[in-house]
Amino acid sequence: MTSDSKPVSGEDSLIARYFRPLATDPGAFDLDDDAAVLRATGDDVVVTTDAIVEGVHFLPSDPPDGVARKALRVNLSDLAAKGATPVGFVLTLALRAPDAAWLEPFASALGEDATRFGCPLLGGDTVATPGPVMISITAFGRVAPGKMVHRSGAGLGDRVVVTGTIGDAALGLDILKGGAVAAALANDAAATAMLAGRYRIPQPRNALAAAIRDHAAAAMDVSDGLAGDLAKLCAASGVSAAIDADSIPLSAPAAALLARGILGIDAIVAGGDDYEILCTVPENRFAAFAQAAGAAEVAVTTIGTIIAGPAVPRFLDEQGNEIALRRASYSHF
Amino acid sequence: MTSDSKPVSGEDSLIARYFRPLATDPGAFDLDDDAAVLRATGDDVVVTTDAIVEGVHFLPSDPPDGVARKALRVNLSDLAAKGATPVGFVLTLALRAPDAAWLEPFASALGEDATRFGCPLLGGDTVATPGPVMISITAFGRVAPGKMVHRSGAGLGDRVVVTGTIGDAALGLDILKGGAVAAALANDAAATAMLAGRYRIPQPRNALAAAIRDHAAAAMDVSDGLAGDLAKLCAASGVSAAIDADSIPLSAPAAALLARGILGIDAIVAGGDDYEILCTVPENRFAAFAQAAGAAEVAVTTIGTIIAGPAVPRFLDEQGNEIALRRASYSHF
Repeated sequence: MTSDSKPVSGEDSLIARYFRPLATDPGAFDLDDDAAVLRATGDDVVVTTDAIVEGVHFLPSDPPDGVARKALRVNLSDLAAKGATPVGFVLTLALRAPDAAWLEPFASALGEDATRFGCPLLGGDTVATPGPVMISITAFGRVAPGKMVHRSGAGLGDRVVVTGTIGDAALGLDILKGGAVAAALANDAAATAMLAGRYRIPQPRNALAAAIRDHAAAAMDVSDGLAGDLAKLCAASGVSAAIDADSIPLSAPAAALLARGILGIDAIVAGGDDYEILCTVPENRFAAFAQAAGAAEVAVTTIGTIIAGPAVPRFLDEQGNEIALRRASYSHF
Repeated sequence: MTSDSKPVSGEDSLIARYFRPLATDPGAFDLDDDAAVLRATGDDVVVTTDAIVEGVHFLPSDPPDGVARKALRVNLSDLAAKGATPVGFVLTLALRAPDAAWLEPFASALGEDATRFGCPLLGGDTVATPGPVMISITAFGRVAPGKMVHRSGAGLGDRVVVTGTIGDAALGLDILKGGAVAAALANDAAATAMLAGRYRIPQPRNALAAAIRDHAAAAMDVSDGLAGDLAKLCAASGVSAAIDADSIPLSAPAAALLARGILGIDAIVAGGDDYEILCTVPENRFAAFAQAAGAAEVAVTTIGTIIAGPAVPRFLDEQGNEIALRRASYSHF
C-alpha cells in the first residue's frame, strides 16, 4: 500500500464501499448482518480454508488484483479437486491501513473472479494489523450427499492423472526472485511472462469438478509440489505409485530448461503452487473421464500407476531406474 | 512465544500433534483431507467469521489458553445471537514460528471449548508470518430453514433486551492497560480480576440460542459497544429506540465506579468486547422468552423500547433527558 493514497475512514464504510458489491448472494444479506446463510438444498457443504501472507505467499510488490485472484483461486482449486461446485466464500482481510489505491483493484478483481467461478462473497471480517497483509478465505462448495472425493480412495491399478502442466509456478517464482531460471530466460520475455503468470495467478480446474466427482477414485490439488502431494494421497489411501517422469506434462519453456540442464526434475516435482489436480482414475473409468475432461477443455495426462505397498511413490526415468529426489515438498515450518 | 522453547518441525506434524485431537467430527476426516464436509441435514448452515490479531485484539502477554478461548468464543457469540446451534469451525493460524510452549496450551484450551460448546474443529490452515500472531475462525451453526434471526426484524413496541451485564470488558481492558479504572480499583483484587477476566474470556450465550430463535424479532451480539451495535440493529430494522440508561445491567464493580464518578455511562455503552446478546422481543413473546432464559440460566434485562423513526437510539437519564454520548462504537480504522 502506498502512503500517499487516500485513506478510507471506518470499517463499515470500507466494507460498504469495496465489498458489498461482491455480496450478490441472497444468503449474504448485503453484508448487513452478523452471519451468512448457506440454504439447505439437500447437498453436503464442502468447506476449505487457505490463507496467504504478504512476504510469504505473495510479494509486497505484487499487484493487488493478482493477490486477490490468488487468494480466492487457491481455495477454488481445493473445491475442484474435491468434486464440489463452488457456492460462496467468506473473507478475512488483515490490513495495516485501508488504502483505496490497494483496496479498489483488490476488491474489483475479487469480484470478477467471484462472478467467473460462481462463488460470491458471503461475509467476512476486516481487521487492522501492524504486520503484513493477510488474506484468509474459507470457501464453500456443494456435492450430493457423501460424494466428496477424498485423498484416500486410490485403488491398485488406478491411473495417476494430472491436469495442465507441472512445475511452471515454481519456475515463475524463481524468475520473480531473480534466480537461475530468470538468468536462463533473460532473452525470452514471452516464456518469462508465462511462467511468472503461472505463479501469480493459478488457473483452478473447476471445469473438471463434475468429471472428478463422477470418475476419480481419489483426488487433491497440487499446491505443495507433485512429489509431496502424491505421497500424501498415497499415504491416505494406503498405497504407493510408480511415476514415469518423462510423462509428466511440461510447458514448452519448462521442457526446454530441463533439456538444457538448467534444472532437474526435482525443480518440477518439488516446486509448489501448481494448483493443478492430481487424481487417480480406475482403468475402466478412464475413457469416460478423458472424454469429460475434453468436453470441459481441461488437459489431462496419465503419469503413472497406483501400486501396492507403503513406499513413498517412485519417480522412474526412461530406463525404469528410480530418480532420487532431494526434497519432497514445501512446508511452512 | 518464547525463544527458548522447543520448535516443532513441519506443518504436517504441527497439525497432527496439536490439532488432530480436536477434529472429533467425522466430517473433519482427521484433518487428513483437503476439505471438510458439513453433511446435509435439512437445516440451513449459518456462517460467521471473526479474526483476532496480536497487539490489536489481544496482548502479546496474554496467556495462549485465553487467546484460544476468545478466538472461538467471539464466533460462538455470533452463532448464539443468530439463534444457531454450533456444529463446528475452521481455523487459520498465522504464527511466526511453531512453539510448543505456546501451541500446547492454545490447542488444549481450544479443544476444551470446542467440547464445551459442541463446536469441533473441522479444518484449517497453518501459515508462517513475519508479523503478529493472527487467528481467524469461521464457525458454523444450524437453524431450521429460514429461521436465522436477523438484525433487521425489530418491530415498533418491541422490548430491547440484553443478556448479562454491559461494560465490564471495556473496564477490564482499561485495567490491563493500567488506566483510570486500574487506579480506582488498586485495592480491590477481586473486582480487578473479574473485570480483566470479562475482557480476556467472553462468556458466549449459546444457552440462549433456542430462546432467541423462538421469540426474538431481531438480535445481534454486542461486540463493538452497546450504543453502536444498537444503532446498527435499529438502522437495519428501519427503527429507533429509547433506552433507559438506569436500567442497563451492570456488575457490582461497574455500578460502584459509575456511582463514584470514576467513569461515565459512555465508558459502559461505548466500550467493546461485551459479547452479550442484544435482541428485541415483542411484548406478547416476552413472558415466554424470559421463562426460556431462566431455564437456560441466562440473565436477561429489558433496557428500553423500539420506537419509530430514523434517529440514532437515544439513551435517557432518570428524568427522561437524553444523555449526550461522545463516541458511538469501536472501529478498527
